[in-house]
Amino acid sequence: MSRFEVRIAGQGGQGIVTAGVMIGRAASVFGGKNVTLTQSYGPESRGGASKVEVIVSDEKVHYPKIRKPNVVAIMSQEAYQKNLEDLNGNAIVVLDSGMVQEDSSNHARVYHVPATRIAESLGKRIVASMVMVGAIIGLTNILDSGFVENAVAKYTPRGTEQLNLNAFKSGREYAQKLLQEQGVTSQQG
Amino acid sequence: MSRFEVRIAGQGGQGIVTAGVMIGRAASVFGGKNVTLTQSYGPESRGGASKVEVIVSDEKVHYPKIRKPNVVAIMSQEAYQKNLEDLNGNAIVVLDSGMVQEDSSNHARVYHVPATRIAESLGKRIVASMVMVGAIIGLTNILDSGFVENAVAKYTPRGTEQLNLNAFKSGREYAQKLLQEQGVTSQQG
Repeated sequence: MSRFEVRIAGQGGQGIVTAGVMIGRAASVFGGKNVTLTQSYGPESRGGASKVEVIVSDEKVHYPKIRKPNVVAIMSQEAYQKNLEDLNGNAIVVLDSGMVQEDSSNHARVYHVPATRIAESLGKRIVASMVMVGAIIGLTNILDSGFVENAVAKYTPRGTEQLNLNAFKSGREYAQKLLQEQGVTSQQG
Repeated sequence: MSRFEVRIAGQGGQGIVTAGVMIGRAASVFGGKNVTLTQSYGPESRGGASKVEVIVSDEKVHYPKIRKPNVVAIMSQEAYQKNLEDLNGNAIVVLDSGMVQEDSSNHARVYHVPATRIAESLGKRIVASMVMVGAIIGLTNILDSGFVENAVAKYTPRGTEQLNLNAFKSGREYAQKLLQEQGVTSQQG
């Protein structure tokens, strides 16, 4: 794939930006791609809305705003209400099922992944966003899984590498099971 | 000022993104503003081009690409050639004078700050970008200096706070001297 766009949205303190940075590093350092990463935050940095958008391309990215996201991952109810409006029909939507109540199933390709619950079972709620990265990779072909594992091992804080890798793998495996239940091997975003 | 735009450009390893993050944190956490921060990087993350664009606004930012930068800080020759094309006449340009040779003085408001040399004199070349943040704040009214000091104290790695604060203050003082020599107290970006 020559270009893909990912949006991850939730609240401050959920590691949203870190998740985007990890995808960006995996794509640039290990995948040899060009990356543009945009983060937005309001005055209330804790508890307020948090969003990251990552564009990965073979070519230089001139327009940093996402136009047709391939994947949108949502980790809070507020983010759910704000971040699904501009989707095209092909976008894959991943909801943190412990954090988001779906209003109506108005989007065809919605997957429910209990990212925060999985993170809690691993011992640290903060790695929920890394579970979500795993789910994104498990559901799509956007990036080689090994590139992301390399990035997680290299760029997460010392002492937390294994926890983050476990979170990533748990999310990927959960997503792969969801696809198997549907009889699909992988979605094209 | 209700909105300002800052671009900082240089090479990987110069702390370009960190400089942008510090301005963004100062503006959001301590200044109560909305911030959008966009970073771009190519496959060669070390030594390759690095750029960060920060938009600070009283209102939510809907378009993350800089349109009329108030300040552009340049820390490498390659970045100099790439990042001055779209400037309006009012933009303040700050060049790291040890790193950038000016081709021609085609822009009215260029300031030369030896950010890397100042950082070296403080003992760590990596804080050059924090010297540059100080120069940006010293040359403009975009942000209260105290907000940035708070952000530097809070968000730089433990043990490096004082070094980073010194770098910031050195850059600000250097810029203030430049303005005094011109008989100006502060530039409006």
